[in-house]
Amino acid sequence: MPGKRTQERTSMLPGNLHVPEDCRAVSEVLDRVGDKWSVLVVVMLGNGPKRFNELRRAIASISQRMLTLTLRGLERDGLVTRTVFPIIPPRVDYELTDLGRSLLTPVDALGRWAREHHGKIVRARERFDAIAKGRVRQEPA
Amino acid sequence: MPGKRTQERTSMLPGNLHVPEDCRAVSEVLDRVGDKWSVLVVVMLGNGPKRFNELRRAIASISQRMLTLTLRGLERDGLVTRTVFPIIPPRVDYELTDLGRSLLTPVDALGRWAREHHGKIVRARERFDAIAKGRVRQEPA
Repeated sequence: MPGKRTQERTSMLPGNLHVPEDCRAVSEVLDRVGDKWSVLVVVMLGNGPKRFNELRRAIASISQRMLTLTLRGLERDGLVTRTVFPIIPPRVDYELTDLGRSLLTPVDALGRWAREHHGKIVRARERFDAIAKGRVRQEPA
Repeated sequence: MPGKRTQERTSMLPGNLHVPEDCRAVSEVLDRVGDKWSVLVVVMLGNGPKRFNELRRAIASISQRMLTLTLRGLERDGLVTRTVFPIIPPRVDYELTDLGRSLLTPVDALGRWAREHHGKIVRARERFDAIAKGRVRQEPA
């Protein structure tokens, strides 16, 4: 348990998230999960194993190098397995592990939020940019 | 509805995520939500309005400049409001908007996942690094 000194900095947050004790764990995981490409690859693999080129075609805007790096990162984190089939030319399949599959639930919730609120965010940006162009920021709101 | 040509690239994913139509929306939102600092600030503000320095103290590893940029990005996206009180020295409060508050649910789910599985990820990384040191990757799995 935290001492008295740190008490004020460990207030209970929604979902019982204690800060900063959990901050490092969440922060480290967010480095991966917060990476757009990783999330998109996990979502694509949610549908079943895929070959490298299938993933590349499905995520049109990703480069070969970035996909390679992303898959290697996901494999390192234990979220994806990489299976090389001994044929010519070699065939390599990527598949979610149980851990990777468990990530689909929160990632999917985030995806739903994104789709639902994307329009609001776009409009908020337009408003903000229009105001920022014309007016000062330091005045009282 | 997508034409026949794109049908194979719009397979149904978990949670009815269609790719690539939704890819841009999700990808754009992930640019913000996937940013570690933004997520940490949103989580901190989940507890109620905070002043700049409160946030800075709570997220020990963030720099003043990064916190400024993060708050401005969140304000621009309509997730956070910034209220300047006309006193000396000026007091500035940051608070979640309804949109920002709605983001807490999926972000919290992700936070719970992170805390629950952080240990597994750390161990997977250790295993991966140990294997990567000693062995080749191109052999069949």
